[in-house]
This record gives sequence, structure tokens and C-alpha cells, in this order.
Amino acid sequence: MCELLAMSANTPTDLCFSFTGLTRRGGDTGPHRDGWGVAFYEGKGVRVFLESGASAESRIAEVVQTHPIKSEVALCHIRQANVGDVCLANTHPFVRELWGRYWSFAHNGQLQGFRAQPGVYQPVGDTDSEALFCDLLNRLRDDGGPDLPVTALSDCLVAYATGYARQGVLNLLLSNGDWLFTFCSTKMASITRRAPFGPARLKDADVTVDFEAETTPNDIVSVIVTEPLTTDEQWDVYTPGEWRLWRQGEVKLRGRVQVPAQSDCSGGVSQRTL
Amino acid sequence: MCELLAMSANTPTDLCFSFTGLTRRGGDTGPHRDGWGVAFYEGKGVRVFLESGASAESRIAEVVQTHPIKSEVALCHIRQANVGDVCLANTHPFVRELWGRYWSFAHNGQLQGFRAQPGVYQPVGDTDSEALFCDLLNRLRDDGGPDLPVTALSDCLVAYATGYARQGVLNLLLSNGDWLFTFCSTKMASITRRAPFGPARLKDADVTVDFEAETTPNDIVSVIVTEPLTTDEQWDVYTPGEWRLWRQGEVKLRGRVQVPAQSDCSGGVSQRTL
Repeated sequence: MCELLAMSANTPTDLCFSFTGLTRRGGDTGPHRDGWGVAFYEGKGVRVFLESGASAESRIAEVVQTHPIKSEVALCHIRQANVGDVCLANTHPFVRELWGRYWSFAHNGQLQGFRAQPGVYQPVGDTDSEALFCDLLNRLRDDGGPDLPVTALSDCLVAYATGYARQGVLNLLLSNGDWLFTFCSTKMASITRRAPFGPARLKDADVTVDFEAETTPNDIVSVIVTEPLTTDEQWDVYTPGEWRLWRQGEVKLRGRVQVPAQSDCSGGVSQRTL
Repeated sequence: MCELLAMSANTPTDLCFSFTGLTRRGGDTGPHRDGWGVAFYEGKGVRVFLESGASAESRIAEVVQTHPIKSEVALCHIRQANVGDVCLANTHPFVRELWGRYWSFAHNGQLQGFRAQPGVYQPVGDTDSEALFCDLLNRLRDDGGPDLPVTALSDCLVAYATGYARQGVLNLLLSNGDWLFTFCSTKMASITRRAPFGPARLKDADVTVDFEAETTPNDIVSVIVTEPLTTDEQWDVYTPGEWRLWRQGEVKLRGRVQVPAQSDCSGGVSQRTL
């Protein structure tokens, strides 16, 4: 399996603290040695750091930990391979352009034998995750358009995700740089930090940060992860089947669908709250 | 204007030496302060480092200079903006997936007012270069398919490039990780290094390398640039209108078309040599 990390903020914010915690799990405090990647949006642009080795031993990951790259949306993945070789083409996050924006995607879980319907987007590597991302974008291209309101967009994403989750474990992060869509079929947690800011201590490294010194009173910064990164904060754990669409650091849309616990393949019921 | 750098090699080779020379021109020995980027292919995967600032002052560019990333195809760009803001979305190289491979593109020149025909690929930023890249891929998607032989593919690329070059200055690098297509409308030069390897000295930095110590006798490594990077080697200068398709460090296809010197808009005549 793999681990996910994402950030949504209302002001450009660096990911150094959280990224430092996550990368230790990539071959040090955790077994996810088979690649790591992180996508940082800056306006409509995105830059992605990718490597097929262990993040805990990477010189480039070390630079990303210590060199503040400010972003309103970022998403990150450390990999423990199950489907597909260990190679750059199989390293998350994956990126494609749709409707004049870069869409990025990272996945934790496994959809054994998943095959994408043929379409404009084709996988480059051979993971189920990238096939699923291409399938999702192909369906969206058929079902929507660049002017699709975000509520209708999230209806599409929830419907697709519900279908995929019937075929396996699907914890996913998806962004176009404007919003961040998160879907939990088994494991995900989030935290929203806002004034008054306090200190926080990483679980995976002897690092403490005082967010008070790093922020302004209006900042709202949320972090979404597979497993909580800090020991002294209260994380909000997702229920299986729960999805949240984040923008500017806050949940803008949320809901829950039914997902199979084990072999339960019953249909999903969606709820949405603005 | 901007500067280009590409590498084609028959064995995974790092770009540290050439990249060190080029990045000095990004705000130190040259005026190209408005962003830099480099794409390294590893198999079918690609990783791209991008920044909208000056490469000569970048901590990330410094890591790319000193941390050997081995690749058979790499392409690089330093930007002095003419069309489009200085921002990440306008930073070359641009990447899109076509037929299950990542295609990357960098451009030196200007096609004022260029508009891409609508199609699957849409620009994210607002440069003429990205619009041109999208136009080229849209046309290729219409005219060809994943099984297009490389000779037919290069015919398409040459025809498109000839048309674009009638509208402005077009020095371009394009790769799908397998081959590297280069087109020169005004300025480009290349060098092919093979055994017996010798030393070389950078023009833009006090750096010398002894390729003998870094290579094996079978290595063939070619570097393609806007302006020669070394002072003590013989570079092969492209003629305006010349194109070369590189693979595994060698020219596999080449030819020349007529391009307007100033306001000459006569048609192109293509030659090709295997």
C-alpha cells in the first residue's frame, strides 16, 4: 500500500513540515520505499517532483523538505508497490491536462485487474492507479465540459469513485489546482489549522513547528493524510465512503456513499452538504 | 528570446556538465532570468524540474547541476519572456501525454499572435510556445496514430514546423522519450561525443570535464543547444531550415526546408536522409 498527503490553503503555504513527516515513512519509519512524488500548484501551473527510490534517502526530497515552495494546493504520495514495476512511469502523482488545466492524481489502494475504457487519455505506465485516473478523465471529458459547476463536477466524481470503490480499495486525491477532491474508502484523516495557531510535533521525526510564527491570523491551512502526522493535535478521521471537496483550506462540499466493507458490493447512496 | 539544450544518448547519461553551463546564462552570463525547466526521461517516465525564477540563483537548479540524473533523452530551456507573464504555467518544457507516452516540448523564438486550432490539447498558460505545442499535438492526433513509423512521423513534424516557421522564429525541441526532434529556423548547434573521449571546458563557468573518465568506449552522447557551451570543441552548426531527428545519440533522420530569412514567405522544400 501507499500513503497520501495533500494540502489546501487560502494563501500560498509551504508543505515542508508535513512533507518531512511523510518522507520518513518512505523507507525509514515506514516501508514505502518504491517511489515518491509531490505536485505543487502555483496559479494554474504545477511542478512535480518524482523519484522511483525511497524518499527517506533522497537528496531531492531533502531539498523539498527544507526549501519552502509555496502553494495553495499540493498533493503527495509515497509508494509501496503492489501493481506495476518500480519505475518513474509508475510513480504518483500522475498529471494530465484537461480543459486547459493540469489535473493531478494520487491513489492509495488496489483495484486488481482494472482496465480503463479506451479514450483520449492513456496510461504511460502499468499501474491500476494511472489506468483509473485516465478512465476518470475520459469519463469526465464525455460527461462534462470546462464550464461544469463544481457541484455538478463533484456529483460526477462521486459517482465514478463509488463505482471504482466497488472493485477495490480507493483512497484518492485529485486536484485541478483550484479545488482538491478527496475520497476515502478505507483510511484518511484531515486537520484544519487556523488562528489561534499553536505548535505541533511530528510523529515520525523529532521536529516541532510553531505555526503561530509562520502564519498570519487570516490563514486557513488544511492537511489531508492517510495516517495523522502529528501526535499533539486532533485529527478528523474520514468514515469509509466519505468524500470532501476542499478549496482555499476549507471543506466546500462533502458527503458519504456506501462502499463495500469486505465483499459487500451494494450500491452507494450519496449525501452532499454545502 | 530563450536558450535551448537537449541531450540524446545511447546509454543513460547525466546532464550535469552542460546544464551547469546553460544555467549560468539564466541570470549570470546571460539575461534569461524568467524561468527555467528541464525534462529527464527514464524509460517511458519523465520528470520535469520547473521554476519561474532565474536558474543562476536557484537552489533546485544547483541540485540538478550536482546530482547526476541519468537519462537517454533530456531537454531544457531557460526563458527570457517575450509573450506571456513570468509564471510557472508559462515555463518550458511543456508536457502532454499522447498515445501512452509523455511528449515534451521547448521553443526558442516567437510566433506573434499564434492561435492554436481547437482540439483535445489546450494551453494552460498564455505563451505562443505552448499554443503551438498543443496545435502540433492536435494535428498529429488527427493525422497519425500510435503505430505511425518514425519516418512518417518526422514527415508530419517537418510539415507542421515548416508552416509554423513561416509565422515567426521557430527553434524547437520535441521528444516522446524515444527520439528527439530538433528544428532550427535561426540558431542551433550540436556536438556528438564518442570514443576517444577528451576533456572539455565550459564557456560560461570555470568548469572542465574529462569525458574519458566518465564514459565507456561504446557511449555516444549528443548535445544540442542554441549556442555552443564549450570553447575547445568543434560544434556542428545547423543551417536555417535544418531539422534532425536524434535517437540513441545519433542523427537518424535529417533534412532541410526553406524558411523565410526575413519577410520571405515562400514554401518549403524538404529533403530527408536516413
